[in-house]
Amino acid sequence: MTKGKLIGVGTGPGDPELVTRKAWAAVAAAKVIAYPAPDSGISFSRSIVADAITEGGVEIPMIVPMRIGRAPAQAIYDEGAKQIKDKLDEGFDVVVLCEGDPLFFGSFMYILARLRDDYDVEIIPGITAMTACASAIHHPLVAREDMMSIMPATMSDEGLRQAISSAQGVAIMKVGRHISRLRTLLDDMGLLDEAYYISHASLPHQNACKLTDAPEDAPYFSMVLLYKGNDEWL
Amino acid sequence: MTKGKLIGVGTGPGDPELVTRKAWAAVAAAKVIAYPAPDSGISFSRSIVADAITEGGVEIPMIVPMRIGRAPAQAIYDEGAKQIKDKLDEGFDVVVLCEGDPLFFGSFMYILARLRDDYDVEIIPGITAMTACASAIHHPLVAREDMMSIMPATMSDEGLRQAISSAQGVAIMKVGRHISRLRTLLDDMGLLDEAYYISHASLPHQNACKLTDAPEDAPYFSMVLLYKGNDEWL
Repeated sequence: MTKGKLIGVGTGPGDPELVTRKAWAAVAAAKVIAYPAPDSGISFSRSIVADAITEGGVEIPMIVPMRIGRAPAQAIYDEGAKQIKDKLDEGFDVVVLCEGDPLFFGSFMYILARLRDDYDVEIIPGITAMTACASAIHHPLVAREDMMSIMPATMSDEGLRQAISSAQGVAIMKVGRHISRLRTLLDDMGLLDEAYYISHASLPHQNACKLTDAPEDAPYFSMVLLYKGNDEWL
Repeated sequence: MTKGKLIGVGTGPGDPELVTRKAWAAVAAAKVIAYPAPDSGISFSRSIVADAITEGGVEIPMIVPMRIGRAPAQAIYDEGAKQIKDKLDEGFDVVVLCEGDPLFFGSFMYILARLRDDYDVEIIPGITAMTACASAIHHPLVAREDMMSIMPATMSDEGLRQAISSAQGVAIMKVGRHISRLRTLLDDMGLLDEAYYISHASLPHQNACKLTDAPEDAPYFSMVLLYKGNDEWL
C-alpha cells in the first residue's frame, strides 16, 4: 500500500481570511488532521481553520501544557508523531496545523524532524505574526539593502543591544514580562519613540500602538517592531 | 464625497494558491488596481492574481525599468501615486499589488509613504519568498530562542561574516552574481555544506538544492538559507 503524505500547513496569525487558498483547500480535503492544543481550552491553529474542517475526519490533538519544560514537550511530540505515523502507514495523508508559518518558530518542526526521513513531505507556508504585525502598524519591516534582525526578548540586555544596533529592521518576539526591560533598554539607546508594540495581530482584539503606550502586562506572544533604516524615501 | 481606501495587497511568492483568501477577495472586489511592471514583459504580481481580476476595471501599471537608479524609480512612484490619488479622490478603493509581503522588502512601501497621511490604509500581508524558500527545502528557518539575520548579498564580506556569525537562522537575499563569493565565504567559515540555494520558490521551475550544487548564473531574486542552531531536537 502507498504511504500517505505528511503535509505541514501554516494557518497564519489568527484571522481565517489570512489563510492561503492552498492551506484552506488542504484542510478541506484532509481526512486526518493533527494540531497542538493547550491542556485547557481550544487549539488556536484549529480554531483558525475550523470552517474548512470536514466533519467525520480523524483528529489528533497533541496536548502541550501551557508551562512546560523541554523534555516533556519532546515526549508529547514523540507520541503525536507515532499517531500520525500510524495514519500515514494506513495510506492517509495527514495535515499538521501550525500557527503562523511551519518553519518560522513553528511547532511543525518537531513532527517534521521525526517523520521526514520515512515519508513524503509537503509544506505550505503561512503568514507570519511578524508580517501581520507590520501590517497592523502600517510601517515597513525592511527595505532595499537593509538588514533585519529577529530575536527573542529573553536575550540578555547586552545581546539585545548588539542585535538591535547591527540591523535596520528589528523584531523582538515573545515580549511578555520583558516589556519594562525592553522599554528601558530602547530608551537608553535613544530608540524608544520609534518602537511599536503589537499583540493579537489580525484578531478582533488586536492591539497595535507605540511601545510607550503599551500595557504593562503584555502577553507572551506579543512583539516589538522598530525600523531604524534610512527613511528619506518615506 | 467619501475618499477611497488605499489597500496594499501581498500576492506571495508566485503560486496563485499561496495568495491569502483575504487578498484574493480584495483583488476580486477591486474596481481599480495598481502594480509595478517591467518595461518589457508582464507584471509578476499581476500575473499571480490574474484569475481574480474582474474585467472592465481600471488598471494602473507603474513601469519600473529593470535596471534603474534611485532617482528615476522615485519619479515613477511619484507618478503612480498621483494616478492612485486621483482614483481615491473619486471615491474608489485602490488595490496596490505587491509580490511577497508589502512591508518586507516590498515595493508597496513607496506608495504607502506618499499617500498614508491623506487616506485610509489597509494592508493585507503576503507569504514572503523567505518562508516559501524554507518550505521548498523542508528545513527550519528558526526555532525556539534562536536569533535570525536577514541580509542582502550585496553586503561586504566582513559585514556578511559578522551577520552570519551572530545568528542561528540566516537568510541571504538577492544572491545573483554574488553566488561564487558567498560560496567562498561560507566555505571559509566552515558552513558551506549546511547552506541551501533556492530560486523561483513555489513556481513550476523552482530550484531548491544544496548551495554546492547551485548554478553559477543565479538569478537576482534567489536566496541562500542556512540553519546553524542547535538541532539536537531534530
